[in-house]
Amino acid sequence: MRLVALLTDFGTEDIYVGVMKGVMRNIDPQAGFIDITHEIHPHSIREGALALRNAYRYFAAGTIFLVVVDPAVGSKRRPIALKSGGYYFVAPDNGVLSYVLAATGNFQAVVLENPRLRLPEISQTFHGRDIFAPAAAYLARGDIDLSTFGPAVTDLELLPAPILKVENRRISGEITHIDRFGNLITSVGLLRRADDTHLSLALGSEPVTFVAEKAVIMLNGQTVQGIRRAYHETQQGEILVQVDSNGYLEIAVNQASAEARLNASVGDTFEVILNDETA
Amino acid sequence: MRLVALLTDFGTEDIYVGVMKGVMRNIDPQAGFIDITHEIHPHSIREGALALRNAYRYFAAGTIFLVVVDPAVGSKRRPIALKSGGYYFVAPDNGVLSYVLAATGNFQAVVLENPRLRLPEISQTFHGRDIFAPAAAYLARGDIDLSTFGPAVTDLELLPAPILKVENRRISGEITHIDRFGNLITSVGLLRRADDTHLSLALGSEPVTFVAEKAVIMLNGQTVQGIRRAYHETQQGEILVQVDSNGYLEIAVNQASAEARLNASVGDTFEVILNDETA
Amino acid sequence: MRLVALLTDFGTEDIYVGVMKGVMRNIDPQAGFIDITHEIHPHSIREGALALRNAYRYFAAGTIFLVVVDPAVGSKRRPIALKSGGYYFVAPDNGVLSYVLAATGNFQAVVLENPRLRLPEISQTFHGRDIFAPAAAYLARGDIDLSTFGPAVTDLELLPAPILKVENRRISGEITHIDRFGNLITSVGLLRRADDTHLSLALGSEPVTFVAEKAVIMLNGQTVQGIRRAYHETQQGEILVQVDSNGYLEIAVNQASAEARLNASVGDTFEVILNDETA
Repeated sequence: MRLVALLTDFGTEDIYVGVMKGVMRNIDPQAGFIDITHEIHPHSIREGALALRNAYRYFAAGTIFLVVVDPAVGSKRRPIALKSGGYYFVAPDNGVLSYVLAATGNFQAVVLENPRLRLPEISQTFHGRDIFAPAAAYLARGDIDLSTFGPAVTDLELLPAPILKVENRRISGEITHIDRFGNLITSVGLLRRADDTHLSLALGSEPVTFVAEKAVIMLNGQTVQGIRRAYHETQQGEILVQVDSNGYLEIAVNQASAEARLNASVGDTFEVILNDETA
Repeated sequence: MRLVALLTDFGTEDIYVGVMKGVMRNIDPQAGFIDITHEIHPHSIREGALALRNAYRYFAAGTIFLVVVDPAVGSKRRPIALKSGGYYFVAPDNGVLSYVLAATGNFQAVVLENPRLRLPEISQTFHGRDIFAPAAAYLARGDIDLSTFGPAVTDLELLPAPILKVENRRISGEITHIDRFGNLITSVGLLRRADDTHLSLALGSEPVTFVAEKAVIMLNGQTVQGIRRAYHETQQGEILVQVDSNGYLEIAVNQASAEARLNASVGDTFEVILNDETA
Repeated sequence: MRLVALLTDFGTEDIYVGVMKGVMRNIDPQAGFIDITHEIHPHSIREGALALRNAYRYFAAGTIFLVVVDPAVGSKRRPIALKSGGYYFVAPDNGVLSYVLAATGNFQAVVLENPRLRLPEISQTFHGRDIFAPAAAYLARGDIDLSTFGPAVTDLELLPAPILKVENRRISGEITHIDRFGNLITSVGLLRRADDTHLSLALGSEPVTFVAEKAVIMLNGQTVQGIRRAYHETQQGEILVQVDSNGYLEIAVNQASAEARLNASVGDTFEVILNDETA
């Protein structure tokens, strides 16, 4: 039994997700499903691409990711399936796989054209049901080769990377996501503790290393001193900056919402000033 | 393993849906579940009936639909199970199965009275847990005949059909659903492309055929010209009317909300004027 | 195949729940999942504890409950797993299991310390993924004894019980939960119908018995007379007090929201005056 992991902007108040699963179980009665999320903001390809990048590595090899954030449904944008990093991905070719491919590297991709591997009738507004879900289910069944779905494609649509720049010991970044707790997730990733006092940012060929507690974050006119190890180094209600569970800089408030406190939105830019020369 | 597909107005913030699944897995450890949606507006039997009608046909034959929108729970309204169109449906007898039965036709129905096929204690407020989920699970197990649940019933509660009338080449309809994207789904269904320029509405014995781009839709004082093939025939932000993925007329805005733009609500009525005599 | 039932405050708009399931399926490809709810208010340990208490008994013996409401993630609060009442529970040791343990009684508990039964890297902010989900999945696999996870623990954190007092034939209680329908669930539980006219409250060694229709409920300056059997004893829009599906006193409005009508919040206190001496 192969697993299909779903990531869409369909929400759960309509029947769309349930219908896609019905279609898949009709094709592969053994298919198992895990919902990553269906609450990507409507039409937000980039938010979907970021969520997928943070989620995929925790799934077993062979998992099929069904990713439908598809504002141009019904137009000429291509429906694709691809294999990369030991996983399968089924999605519109609109950039929603950009960030996962930046991590997984090489891929083998096809356009979903084979009419025998779609529903008999194709609507103009719900390719999730008519094209993408059937493709995911046929891949889950495991008896159909990728090349059977359609012609190979190599020139995929790609999104620009989120803002992340280091210059004169200043890091520039942007808020890429705000989670349910009001935590601000940023584009400043690949952070690791180098030792007890230093963090290192694995950007480019030479990692930038700095003293965590001397870094100063400036966002929307507010300044936060130091990058902490965990919530419990702060009091309830205190702002803190820390490394999130995926290695990204995160701005949070202990048991409250940083979004509300800092009046922050996705896309807001900020700077981190590295106040040490001896790192 | 049979599949139980769930459709309720229970939401997902409470434990109700999880508890129903716990009850079912206790009765049938092999039961599989697909959530169609639990976000039917509280007590909205008609919204549930419409959602079920649009969803059921995409599920495999033998699927058991557990449909709980039950404002009169605890009263004398009958809990029922029925077989129709190759599917099973378990629901209160309050009309929530009306529109699916209009499509599936003949049915065999029973009242859920057998105390051995319920939980031992029946609350007054949660028959989803105490009566409906057990019935769905026993049906999923596949070893109990429908007639074992209770006496046959034929006089089911039925809802009036949504407004749909054609007179003097004017179609009258109503908005039956607004989806997460703010798309307005209407009662004007059974639409098919007759050819490149014509749509046909399969109402009554003689279908009405008309030129898609000459049709004019009038809703809440706004007028929209033409029924398009897909979003990509419009600019971002433009209103369009198209045929939705289930064959119903849909009023949408390209990558924005028609609900907000047209200040529309479920139940709003509208007209489509067919401006051609030569169809 | 063992079942994992999930209860968290993670919401479903982020990837957190999906990632935990991915981690679990990676460890136990046969694991099945049921979501109880992920909409516990952020950081509300008590709300999670109450929801778990009302849900667990409907699940099959052997079910593993993965309960993550964890405001102190990253601090020294202990991650634990325990067996009680024929079930397994995996959770932070912060009181979220208090009310279920009050019902199940004896338990065998361990601290989750074994590094081989966690993910290789432990973040400071997402122990649900790194510690709790792996533990639940290893328990689901069924081949690892509880004692393998870490040292035994007996001094668990416990929450105070919800307010429930009877004095001079007055019951004092509080609102413990407001559900999606706006129903006010209270701390006054263990209610049973003694006979056609009497209810009995199984508090302490001697149950309090009273005439249901003579009881008067006073909440936020409003008075409601009588405890009804079911919604259908009232008109649409009428306030009623009844016994909910778990045996707790519930204040509702027939097909509308008691929360809105009574301007009620979780934590509001109220009194029930038992106006009969002859019970």
